[in-house]
Amino acid sequence: MTTIDIMTLFPESVGDMLCESVLGIAQERGLIRINTWQIRDFTVHKQKQVDDYPYGGGLGIVMTADPLYRCWRHICDQAGAERLHTIHMSPAGQTFCQAKARELKDNYERFIIVCGHYEGIDERFIEECVDEEISMGDFVLTGGEIPAMAVADAVCRLVPGVLAGEECFTNESHWNGLLEHPQYTRPEEWHGRKVPEILLSGHHANIARWRRKESIKRTMRRRPDLYAKFTPESKQDKKILNEILAEEEND
Amino acid sequence: MTTIDIMTLFPESVGDMLCESVLGIAQERGLIRINTWQIRDFTVHKQKQVDDYPYGGGLGIVMTADPLYRCWRHICDQAGAERLHTIHMSPAGQTFCQAKARELKDNYERFIIVCGHYEGIDERFIEECVDEEISMGDFVLTGGEIPAMAVADAVCRLVPGVLAGEECFTNESHWNGLLEHPQYTRPEEWHGRKVPEILLSGHHANIARWRRKESIKRTMRRRPDLYAKFTPESKQDKKILNEILAEEEND
Repeated sequence: MTTIDIMTLFPESVGDMLCESVLGIAQERGLIRINTWQIRDFTVHKQKQVDDYPYGGGLGIVMTADPLYRCWRHICDQAGAERLHTIHMSPAGQTFCQAKARELKDNYERFIIVCGHYEGIDERFIEECVDEEISMGDFVLTGGEIPAMAVADAVCRLVPGVLAGEECFTNESHWNGLLEHPQYTRPEEWHGRKVPEILLSGHHANIARWRRKESIKRTMRRRPDLYAKFTPESKQDKKILNEILAEEEND
Repeated sequence: MTTIDIMTLFPESVGDMLCESVLGIAQERGLIRINTWQIRDFTVHKQKQVDDYPYGGGLGIVMTADPLYRCWRHICDQAGAERLHTIHMSPAGQTFCQAKARELKDNYERFIIVCGHYEGIDERFIEECVDEEISMGDFVLTGGEIPAMAVADAVCRLVPGVLAGEECFTNESHWNGLLEHPQYTRPEEWHGRKVPEILLSGHHANIARWRRKESIKRTMRRRPDLYAKFTPESKQDKKILNEILAEEEND
């Protein structure tokens, strides 16, 4: 069973969020397990302090190595492991992507995510316990909690059984390197806007082709960087591509 | 006052998370306001349904336009606005970054973030109400909630007064396009690992120089893409760069 241990100063909020929707159901069904750990429970400091001023000065405070280490040690011991694969969410890490989610799911039955807070965590804990640092992107957040939830969500969705059917995730954005086609549901007309007729035709092959075309078109227009990595998979893809290019010329 | 309205099926979890830490304090102090809205409260469907099967078939369900629209209209009306700037969190959007956070903070006193769920939301709501789509990165999540929290966090941190001092955020990762230098706090020695001596020297200029060098070195090694955009700002930067290059040659 895929088990993710999240070390944080805000275990309730993180745990609640990850109990919503499909991840909550998957946990109830015993398909995955997400443990949240309060780092503060592992400090030996009387006032439960887990942070201190940075050496060398500057504003802000830094999380001390010791409570982090004790929490980490406790989780590893509980798992009966000398050490578990440990991720630190940090803007200095590698940018997260779907391939990384798959790598984590495939390689580790259990792993730890450490959420830093304030101005970061003592580098010595990172040197001693952290195997890799992962970043959510090039922006600054208050802590590692939101990025950790994103990693947990993306990884858990890949565990067999968590989603209703294989198709649910093979069809989704970035799975095949293309953006998702637009979606429509009832009613047929809303605020004067109609559902594209082809979707009402019942002709499955045509619908699949239309969706594929919309996906490719969208990716081409909105994400040229993703599109550059796209290789047409079939004769149909090549035909679709020619159609799109012809349409663009006519525009 | 910067106000963010988040439309979601999970308002409690989102709201709780965004009340933690500095964002919670900033809300109490009236510096920012984060409203979470339950989309389900705006359906006219008897069973409170907010989703339906996609036209054209396929697994999964799609969020219907109408409850989204009614929720959106209610927020705009409450703000006394014909429309508010509206963001849809979607993997088909532009990738989020610090410049986007600043743009949102600078341009909109109040804006809406719509969190999709399931296989997405009816395209017609997007056409009618959404001004821009933002993606958290190239990975698949269960819903827009986690990305929405990231946007709210990154934007709110930029509001004056939310952080203790200007320095807190000017120093942080990606603010100046460089990764953050390592941080150390007490004790001086932990598990046989010592704090770099220079940080104990009390010599502020040397410490600042050491930190700058570590930032540049880290960015160069870990994020060549960011480093490529870096321009040395001073004579000191140029000297530091030469030092690093000399060290690399000796390695």
